[in-house]
Amino acid sequence: MSFPSSWTTSPQQPDVRFFEQAARRQSILTKPTGSLGRLENAAVQLAGLQGTDTPTLERIQISVFAGDHGICEEGVSAYPQAVTAQMIANFANGGAAISVLAKSLGAELEVVNLGTVSDVAPDLPGVIDARIAPCTRNFAATDAMTAEQVCAALNHGDAAAQRAANKGSQLFIGGEMGIGNTTSATAIASSLMGKNPMKLTGPGTGLNVAGVRHKAEVIIQAIQRHDNDDDGEDAIAVLKAFGGFEIAALAGAIAGCAARSIPVLIDGYIVSVAAMLAVSQQPHIRDWLLFAHRSAEPGHQAILAALDAEPLLDLGMRLGEGSGAAAAVPLLRAACDLHNNMASFEDAGVSNKDQ
Amino acid sequence: MSFPSSWTTSPQQPDVRFFEQAARRQSILTKPTGSLGRLENAAVQLAGLQGTDTPTLERIQISVFAGDHGICEEGVSAYPQAVTAQMIANFANGGAAISVLAKSLGAELEVVNLGTVSDVAPDLPGVIDARIAPCTRNFAATDAMTAEQVCAALNHGDAAAQRAANKGSQLFIGGEMGIGNTTSATAIASSLMGKNPMKLTGPGTGLNVAGVRHKAEVIIQAIQRHDNDDDGEDAIAVLKAFGGFEIAALAGAIAGCAARSIPVLIDGYIVSVAAMLAVSQQPHIRDWLLFAHRSAEPGHQAILAALDAEPLLDLGMRLGEGSGAAAAVPLLRAACDLHNNMASFEDAGVSNKDQ
Repeated sequence: MSFPSSWTTSPQQPDVRFFEQAARRQSILTKPTGSLGRLENAAVQLAGLQGTDTPTLERIQISVFAGDHGICEEGVSAYPQAVTAQMIANFANGGAAISVLAKSLGAELEVVNLGTVSDVAPDLPGVIDARIAPCTRNFAATDAMTAEQVCAALNHGDAAAQRAANKGSQLFIGGEMGIGNTTSATAIASSLMGKNPMKLTGPGTGLNVAGVRHKAEVIIQAIQRHDNDDDGEDAIAVLKAFGGFEIAALAGAIAGCAARSIPVLIDGYIVSVAAMLAVSQQPHIRDWLLFAHRSAEPGHQAILAALDAEPLLDLGMRLGEGSGAAAAVPLLRAACDLHNNMASFEDAGVSNKDQ
Repeated sequence: MSFPSSWTTSPQQPDVRFFEQAARRQSILTKPTGSLGRLENAAVQLAGLQGTDTPTLERIQISVFAGDHGICEEGVSAYPQAVTAQMIANFANGGAAISVLAKSLGAELEVVNLGTVSDVAPDLPGVIDARIAPCTRNFAATDAMTAEQVCAALNHGDAAAQRAANKGSQLFIGGEMGIGNTTSATAIASSLMGKNPMKLTGPGTGLNVAGVRHKAEVIIQAIQRHDNDDDGEDAIAVLKAFGGFEIAALAGAIAGCAARSIPVLIDGYIVSVAAMLAVSQQPHIRDWLLFAHRSAEPGHQAILAALDAEPLLDLGMRLGEGSGAAAAVPLLRAACDLHNNMASFEDAGVSNKDQ
């Protein structure tokens, strides 16, 4: 299996003319310029990325990538590993947060099962079987994934982007579920940014202070082990070292969407780490990203800063699943509505500031 | 004319049992407790205020109060005074930001015309004729309003709350339009909080640095003039001193909603000042308030702090009209959806942290 071309080729850059036209339109609408704040920027960005004067977000695909983590052997999560498989069923049955949010948005929700320790019931609606292995390996002891597994996961992510393109999706949201995955994500983020894991490690689903300290120590030792091999620090090497399946698939999906000119709304901590991986591979992927929310997970701040990202929401959310991104969609839709439907000063006969 | 009873009587306090029941429900839903952040608090608050286990926001009334300000003679706004009347027509014709947002929310939008210097076309749809005078008086020279005008404006606000109650509204949003009204609002806020107007005065619709300084000086002198009369510093006295019609009406509407057990979603700077007036009159009005957004207007921070309010959004908005509150409604609706429709750990067969 080879890497998807979206991983090895830089995406097309958006056409700057549409950003300029959208900015001009914002300046003639019946409001003091800038008074809609970041809703104005969001409309301009979506107009530019969609290459249109009238951006819309009617067709949205949400893909939740799920997989289990061998690092759970080290006692790094507050929840049992069985929850990953149980939550896949909950996604499919409509009971999870992302299921509720997707339904109310009218968004397509699919779950990509990359491998869980506990069995997932077969034929759950909307669950795609993309199992690589029941679990990554314990990265406290050895590499979490083989090179082949990384490649397979990237391709599963790229396939989700292709499905989004086939459906004419105007926005892509990636979500994740994987007990233990903030540990993988923090190891990746620490490696890529050269930061002390003590500064980035957080409670995840709900560790106490001692649990967070233990988790950080596990990460520090794993990074030392990885530094002694000769794999280097590129995206593939750190994914191989720390996993997981769903983080690699998210990176592949983000790259795949950029390659297909689909804007991506980035969720919280885990998805931002996947975005950092994709952007480290192809810097112009950054052009296609919007950022939904600032997670309560403490490491998210550093990742957002590294990506020069200023998310729309800051609500103390830390659930994952793509839930923070889904929560931000109505703001983007409002931004589009205002951009497309407000009257201009001239049309409404309203005096402008300079008249 | 006498004050509305909502102004002279403390509102009923919400029933604490519904807050407690809602908090218990949040703890059994399939997510780590607290992981939906402030969306959890919003759902609990709405359940408590609506006195229900299943809060909803299907019926929302948005009332935009408009009026002109005599203080415009002092050159305190970047826009001509004619814009107040022109924008009333724009609200009615669907071209203003709040018109676009109200339509997409399926919310009732009404405009309460309390008096403008320029004529408003008669019989505009959704515009209520509540004219008190063409304009408040210039508060740099004299009191902005008579006691009778303050009373009339409070009653017009209370009438809007009564209309919301008649329609079974589950949430009330007050908005405002009035060229010059950040000057009135800042004079009120400075008086009520005993703060230096230099610290609270901002650009409003778009003054430059010199304009902001001039505006602050106008406010400082007016407060000195007011301090020399013997009216005191209660809500009625400062409204009389500084206006305006729409700020008094907003204070009346907020009090009127609290009296009728209708939760109020507070917009930005001007509406927060009106809320502070209402709460200074009846402290338990505070129980009925949710806060939508942090305005870019610098004085808003101090007002929010005084009201112990933590708004949902911080998007640099500074338009008024109720637009920031309307932008936050989908977050409240998402909070209700999640609260009402997520599966519990038990129902979904998902293992909880403690099991």
